[in-house]
Amino acid sequence: MSNANADSLVASHDPNHPANLICELCRLFYNNGWVTGTGGGISIRKGDHIFIAPSGVQKERMLPDNMFVMDLETKEYLRVPKSLKPSACTPLFLAAYTNRNAGACIHTHSQNAVLISLLYDKVFTIANIEQIKALPKLTEPGYLGFFDTLTIPIIENTAHEEDLKDSLEQAINDYPATTAVLVRRHGIYVWGETVWKAKVYNEAIDYLLELAVKMRQLGVPPDGAIGSERNTRVV
Amino acid sequence: MSNANADSLVASHDPNHPANLICELCRLFYNNGWVTGTGGGISIRKGDHIFIAPSGVQKERMLPDNMFVMDLETKEYLRVPKSLKPSACTPLFLAAYTNRNAGACIHTHSQNAVLISLLYDKVFTIANIEQIKALPKLTEPGYLGFFDTLTIPIIENTAHEEDLKDSLEQAINDYPATTAVLVRRHGIYVWGETVWKAKVYNEAIDYLLELAVKMRQLGVPPDGAIGSERNTRVV
Amino acid sequence: MSNANADSLVASHDPNHPANLICELCRLFYNNGWVTGTGGGISIRKGDHIFIAPSGVQKERMLPDNMFVMDLETKEYLRVPKSLKPSACTPLFLAAYTNRNAGACIHTHSQNAVLISLLYDKVFTIANIEQIKALPKLTEPGYLGFFDTLTIPIIENTAHEEDLKDSLEQAINDYPATTAVLVRRHGIYVWGETVWKAKVYNEAIDYLLELAVKMRQLGVPPDGAIGSERNTRVV
Amino acid sequence: MSNANADSLVASHDPNHPANLICELCRLFYNNGWVTGTGGGISIRKGDHIFIAPSGVQKERMLPDNMFVMDLETKEYLRVPKSLKPSACTPLFLAAYTNRNAGACIHTHSQNAVLISLLYDKVFTIANIEQIKALPKLTEPGYLGFFDTLTIPIIENTAHEEDLKDSLEQAINDYPATTAVLVRRHGIYVWGETVWKAKVYNEAIDYLLELAVKMRQLGVPPDGAIGSERNTRVV
Repeated sequence: MSNANADSLVASHDPNHPANLICELCRLFYNNGWVTGTGGGISIRKGDHIFIAPSGVQKERMLPDNMFVMDLETKEYLRVPKSLKPSACTPLFLAAYTNRNAGACIHTHSQNAVLISLLYDKVFTIANIEQIKALPKLTEPGYLGFFDTLTIPIIENTAHEEDLKDSLEQAINDYPATTAVLVRRHGIYVWGETVWKAKVYNEAIDYLLELAVKMRQLGVPPDGAIGSERNTRVV
Repeated sequence: MSNANADSLVASHDPNHPANLICELCRLFYNNGWVTGTGGGISIRKGDHIFIAPSGVQKERMLPDNMFVMDLETKEYLRVPKSLKPSACTPLFLAAYTNRNAGACIHTHSQNAVLISLLYDKVFTIANIEQIKALPKLTEPGYLGFFDTLTIPIIENTAHEEDLKDSLEQAINDYPATTAVLVRRHGIYVWGETVWKAKVYNEAIDYLLELAVKMRQLGVPPDGAIGSERNTRVV
Repeated sequence: MSNANADSLVASHDPNHPANLICELCRLFYNNGWVTGTGGGISIRKGDHIFIAPSGVQKERMLPDNMFVMDLETKEYLRVPKSLKPSACTPLFLAAYTNRNAGACIHTHSQNAVLISLLYDKVFTIANIEQIKALPKLTEPGYLGFFDTLTIPIIENTAHEEDLKDSLEQAINDYPATTAVLVRRHGIYVWGETVWKAKVYNEAIDYLLELAVKMRQLGVPPDGAIGSERNTRVV
Repeated sequence: MSNANADSLVASHDPNHPANLICELCRLFYNNGWVTGTGGGISIRKGDHIFIAPSGVQKERMLPDNMFVMDLETKEYLRVPKSLKPSACTPLFLAAYTNRNAGACIHTHSQNAVLISLLYDKVFTIANIEQIKALPKLTEPGYLGFFDTLTIPIIENTAHEEDLKDSLEQAINDYPATTAVLVRRHGIYVWGETVWKAKVYNEAIDYLLELAVKMRQLGVPPDGAIGSERNTRVV
């Protein structure tokens, strides 16, 4: 593909075009403290084209012109922006696209995710909180209910981000009902059928992680506390 | 009502029109972390017309065109926006309109509300804090005084939001002086005579819930601590 | 003064005009959580004219047209905006103008101020923190040094805000070096020679109150901790 | 240099001109709570010209016209804005320029920095957190790895900011791998090859300081906790 054609892949006046949306969402994530210090990343799929934010740049200052575009089938780059490096998250985004047919994948360094990974062992679970209902069941249609337990696997971090691929895929296979994987001392990967679903899932999960940290600070057990005998159910 | 007429119910250049105000206030609530992940909801009444935000959408990205409109008398929808689902909060908003002649009702997933519901049993009470004075007495004219106790009932959550209706109405009846009901492990419902009063009450209550959580973290009893012998009065 | 003349007192294109500045600063204070739920207040003096935000309104939504104007000499209102009530803080603002020749006075319901008033008895003190240097000595020219101790008196709250006047004036007299008074379970009053000094003092004090709360949460004594033997000096 | 020429040093339509960038970044830092109450400072180098924010002003309200410009070789001011005082941080910024060939130096009163200086003795260290990878090795090319330990020296505060120069230079010499120095009970100095690197380093470090404070609050050892046996390595 000629260079001019490649540039046309990221040039659009539509605010919902992936190249524009990645920039807008990263500004939002930056303001939430999720991608400061160049941390984190995001990828959106449009048909067979995968748009990926570059590595090591200030996520809140990206322009559509900074985006990599990859062909999902051939795994070849259709567009490589000048002087930028591809994201080390790329194999992990591909894992979500390939194994889950995701439409977008978000990676943050949320401090809530890091703290939860220091407080929980192999999985994070939380139950009986209304916000759980924003998350999908996945193994069957529909969303989790209030009395359901949300379970998110925690994988160990590796020296190089791309080396997380195997354990991330293992977690995706071992936990078919999860739409996210926590990476110990690192952050979280969240994906969804569409970019908006991925965004909402990430928001709802971060709300629950933050709440669980606060519950720990207050000495409240995540699945118990006042009213629990009336308001929780083992499932 | 024809479709064109129904659309005119939500089309207005007046920023204080309910359909516009719902969008503006939800952006504010989103920035406060009260309605992230599609959580929460809001409804405003204008005469006999009730405007209601739809279910399961990103609350900070709504447009006036997304609003449902219901007739308070007949409980029939005057306007149903295409491809959107009515809010499961609707029966609860109606409870506030019917039982309290409210002008607006706000529902949030505020983490302060959830945490307080884990720390208190059947009611949340707080006394001798100046911010209490922003809240109405209701059973008589005027506002609470500094030495008064604010009491907000806590009801148990249910699997389906609409099933909260009976216990919410029970709480409204049992606590005629309250302008809010906490829902355990879920959030809070706050209403007021006008949308601005509902907004102010919700802000003042959330301030008090947040303060009570922080007092607990610091080991300060909500109604006591240094200066209490001089500065508090049992009422 | 005729009504038209009275309105001209608050109509100006100069962003630094008191009526405009009160609105701008209150939006800032609202975003800091200092004046939510209609709490708090502010007054700016321009010569012998005192501009005062009204009582019981949403502080972030005020317009210049909402401002009261009082003559400092005669204590008579030069302008009373329609359907608004004078602030109950007015006697307290006057105390700062009269006793300290202040140019502006800020009142917030900062949660940091309320929490500190629950943790300290008759005064709040903090020493050996760089931010102290933003605050004036007052009893002599210049600013506090790093090794100085900042002392802010705490007065007891009263049922009616205006009844704080006597104890506020007492504190102003008893603590000639203070530019602020904490009100237990209520908030803080901060004043300065100009509106910008008052704003800066309020910011610096709130920073120190917040830090002292966090130090308490971490079990660090406000005037001690690691490095204290090398880095603090009793003065 | 004539006055007109001196003014041309800070007048530019380029948003990346140091005089413009200082203003933009200080607004960002203010919103992060790093430079409230006139605290903190920043300097950017462009060739042999050093641009420095003035002392004692509201950092979020500065204009390009407020900037000092100094010649790095001669240490003479090329531009002195009217009625403003040079920053007391100037000798410390020069230390970073002279000893490290920095392109910019940021000084904040971040509460995370102050709190960490109260919890750690002579150095702050943190290991096995992904965000560490945003920081440079300096003593060799490239960035720190996940299993590396970030070490930031802590120096004692002095009565006058300029007196920090000797101990700051000592710390710079003693810790050739550091791009920042914590000042006990005061804040932090962070520098980098370019202004953007300095900004990113400061963000990444503050993230790590904040995380370490939260880990302490939760009783999690900075280099240990669940998963540590699998996910940490002594280096």
